[in-house]
Amino acid sequence: MRGAILHGPRDVRVENRPDPTIVKPTDAVIRLSASCVCGSDLWPYRGLNASGDPAPMGHEYCGIVEEVGRGVSSIAPGQFVIGSFAASDNTCPHCKAGYQSSCAHREWVTGAQAPFLRVPLADGTLVATPEVPPPSLVPSFLAVSDVLGTGWFAADAANVKPGATVVVVGDGAVGLLGVLSAKQMGAERIIAMSRHASRQALARAFGATDIVVERGEEGVARIKELTRSVGADSVLECVGTQESMAQAIQSTRPGGSISYVGVPHGVELDGTQLFYTHVHLHGGPAPVRRYLPQLIELVLNDRINPGKVFDLEVPLEQVAEGYKAMDERRAIKTLLRTS
Amino acid sequence: MRGAILHGPRDVRVENRPDPTIVKPTDAVIRLSASCVCGSDLWPYRGLNASGDPAPMGHEYCGIVEEVGRGVSSIAPGQFVIGSFAASDNTCPHCKAGYQSSCAHREWVTGAQAPFLRVPLADGTLVATPEVPPPSLVPSFLAVSDVLGTGWFAADAANVKPGATVVVVGDGAVGLLGVLSAKQMGAERIIAMSRHASRQALARAFGATDIVVERGEEGVARIKELTRSVGADSVLECVGTQESMAQAIQSTRPGGSISYVGVPHGVELDGTQLFYTHVHLHGGPAPVRRYLPQLIELVLNDRINPGKVFDLEVPLEQVAEGYKAMDERRAIKTLLRTS
Repeated sequence: MRGAILHGPRDVRVENRPDPTIVKPTDAVIRLSASCVCGSDLWPYRGLNASGDPAPMGHEYCGIVEEVGRGVSSIAPGQFVIGSFAASDNTCPHCKAGYQSSCAHREWVTGAQAPFLRVPLADGTLVATPEVPPPSLVPSFLAVSDVLGTGWFAADAANVKPGATVVVVGDGAVGLLGVLSAKQMGAERIIAMSRHASRQALARAFGATDIVVERGEEGVARIKELTRSVGADSVLECVGTQESMAQAIQSTRPGGSISYVGVPHGVELDGTQLFYTHVHLHGGPAPVRRYLPQLIELVLNDRINPGKVFDLEVPLEQVAEGYKAMDERRAIKTLLRTS
Repeated sequence: MRGAILHGPRDVRVENRPDPTIVKPTDAVIRLSASCVCGSDLWPYRGLNASGDPAPMGHEYCGIVEEVGRGVSSIAPGQFVIGSFAASDNTCPHCKAGYQSSCAHREWVTGAQAPFLRVPLADGTLVATPEVPPPSLVPSFLAVSDVLGTGWFAADAANVKPGATVVVVGDGAVGLLGVLSAKQMGAERIIAMSRHASRQALARAFGATDIVVERGEEGVARIKELTRSVGADSVLECVGTQESMAQAIQSTRPGGSISYVGVPHGVELDGTQLFYTHVHLHGGPAPVRRYLPQLIELVLNDRINPGKVFDLEVPLEQVAEGYKAMDERRAIKTLLRTS
């Protein structure tokens, strides 16, 4: 098959790769309905924390089960399934506590920018829809697999409650779907920090009530102004840099909550400073599996349309352009047609 | 009056100081029933974060109201009251959210190692008991004022729930009362990290089920062994050093909670490392005021005896020995007789 391989900074190519097969009895192989490029793919694309070796890319996926190993019991060929970047057994103590992305047997899924994908621990990782959904829902299910699951965790981990005042730092797909998630959880006021017109528009469509274009000290001052000097109840840090974390910490009221869901790059927290802010801090790789049944239901019932984050669609063969457009912030998120 | 003054590293003396008076209409002046030395007093005593100027010491207090300003309405002379190191108006948004130690009008109380003390914002800071309690309860009310309030916040902020497995890092008075608090909140297993026989004994008396003497990697291994490789649900970090924070983080299960209540000294948190641990982190100066009514009730009903942390009692004039005994870890906590 053909699949995306990252060779070095800004050098992603579609090349021939072996078709995935069942390696362990707990595996499934699925035919992807579509694939996409993640904001987190941009870190290695930009040369940060790349291994140096050519790497198959992609970890967001939904599609039709082609084949399952003999140890798989809850998933069958022909079903439409959605999974997460973290394969999990869904039975260990960490999974039972809802932290499947810290599963004792966790495997990171990769290679999903391709027509076929091997998914380990299929029983614990994949969730099937009652029927094969219409193609129009594929973008939304693809979003559920990672960016919505992560935005939802961001809102949940930031303890968003009905009536809350929420700040979302970061206007990537995860931040925008953090807005959607906060709205679903009943937030009254959702302040999106964004300076890009198209992203501001989507934030508003997803439920943002205010847009803040300022950053740094000015951004903090603006949040304080909007919250009558109190600060926000919940702040979703959806970037992963020192600046975005500082923005989040300074935007939160004492006793308020900050979530951080983007892999931090160079973030150092000063213990003393954090101490006097009185914030709650929680984050990590989103346990998307925890939320899959609920999010699938919301999509099937047409309550949410997270697929709107895809504002560029290209064939898999043009994956390089998909990355480039996101790197240059011309696109929010790129959908890759794999068939 | 006579009061304790810190002049420099390990140089604390009792000297003549002006009697406190009502400065603002919202002040009260109280006659202390007793005073004491706090673990946090040891930081400046050891020469860390001291201002350099002679400083009146002490911030834990209970006693009889002598005088109130004309703006004070809920507290009257003759009442026995307990307050906190953070004076608060108890009406601002932060107070209403339960974070009185981040009150918009917060003032740090100091100078309590003396017979009399001025307490700002008396209405919002002081809580009176129904009657003047017997002298036997004074040590416990003195503990409520800070070390128990802080240990209770540690357990609350670490989300201790009935049936939980809890680790307490630090065997100072706050850590020991964190054990007591976790027990009160229904923890099933309480693992106290301590290598001092007298502190281990008190930890057990307060409800610890296990004692871990190991530290560092060995301490982490021991906690993992005791929790079947899962980690603890709640970890109370009651020291404030890089080592104790690392110990706490590595002892917590994914999705578990860490509180930190000792002013951090030189603590730096690596964002990436924290991200993959999936822990909740919350701390800060304990909002003791939030818990005062409940803790006073528990003492009055003889449900708890936090005064047991005082294992040394000296007259105020011997305050230097009180500090020295704690500094050398000969005493857990020193009570100062002020009359």
